[in-house]
Amino acid sequence: MSKGILFVLSGPSGVGKGTVCSALRGKLPDLVYSVSATTRSPRQGEVNGVNYFFKTRDEFLDMMQNDQLLEYAEYVGNYYGTPRDFVEKTLESGNDIILEIEVQGALQVKQKFPEGVFIFLLPPSLDELKDRIIGRGTENQATIDHRMTVAVDEINLMQHYDYAVVNDQIDCACKRIESIIIAEHCKIKK
Amino acid sequence: MSKGILFVLSGPSGVGKGTVCSALRGKLPDLVYSVSATTRSPRQGEVNGVNYFFKTRDEFLDMMQNDQLLEYAEYVGNYYGTPRDFVEKTLESGNDIILEIEVQGALQVKQKFPEGVFIFLLPPSLDELKDRIIGRGTENQATIDHRMTVAVDEINLMQHYDYAVVNDQIDCACKRIESIIIAEHCKIKK
Repeated sequence: MSKGILFVLSGPSGVGKGTVCSALRGKLPDLVYSVSATTRSPRQGEVNGVNYFFKTRDEFLDMMQNDQLLEYAEYVGNYYGTPRDFVEKTLESGNDIILEIEVQGALQVKQKFPEGVFIFLLPPSLDELKDRIIGRGTENQATIDHRMTVAVDEINLMQHYDYAVVNDQIDCACKRIESIIIAEHCKIKK
Repeated sequence: MSKGILFVLSGPSGVGKGTVCSALRGKLPDLVYSVSATTRSPRQGEVNGVNYFFKTRDEFLDMMQNDQLLEYAEYVGNYYGTPRDFVEKTLESGNDIILEIEVQGALQVKQKFPEGVFIFLLPPSLDELKDRIIGRGTENQATIDHRMTVAVDEINLMQHYDYAVVNDQIDCACKRIESIIIAEHCKIKK
């Protein structure tokens, strides 16, 4: 049996990574979704090992120090990261795994796991991205401007990725990602 | 408008290149099929520029000498080749083009056009390939043995290709090739 492939789906905030990933989940039941580790407390209904691997701060710091995380970040006082172990066990079992992640995290994963396949999800245009961020209705003008600046910086990091997929329509974006998954399995290893 | 991509579909004789190519033609009407040049006489109903570009022997030798062919071969006294011009004009117009060709010819194309995408069509197994060759009912044992030896030699050349597609079922093989085409268009140029 051949090993699975790690696919990393990334792109600027607001581009629709989560929506595309949920749609893919429906279409590709064999594709495993990476489960993150976090130090934040479980919310009601969240199950350890399904929604997150819940860790104490000490356990998380231990994982960081022992290179057991493919990437990690701190967000409003809690740590979040991708356990290397879960990814590697999934690949060893012959299954593909997909990781939906911010651009900075994806570049950390690329350092530690260069054999992964890195897919950058692009908005159809910057105007469209701005509309989507405004559309959430939760951001003031300064925040919107800041997020747009970050998005442009992130899009400039696209050349570190293997593929660019435009998220014009969810179905089209999913079809492109499915195609990338099939094609990568046909690739002849050099 | 971005340039098209040259896809080269190759593989051992008997693997089903022609059948897969015809099926693809039905599914992907925008994909252009390369038209070969030949010195053989047109058969009834064959149209110049559609079935073949019909050339005199002198014209063909001229094309060879002026590097106007991506590959060529002699077969029972006639020359057959792939005009570079037709391929390049199609790509410039933004269309993809597919070339269905024997293994030796594909390797010639790779020398002259390394930016092409080279797909090797594989039988599900060598036994299955033998069955397909025998199934044609036109070959004696010595011919069958010879063709199997050539097929094994050709399969050993697979590492010069970019992708391997197993032709287990025509629909599945077509889906893999379609996926490769879509994925190649998403690739980030390095």
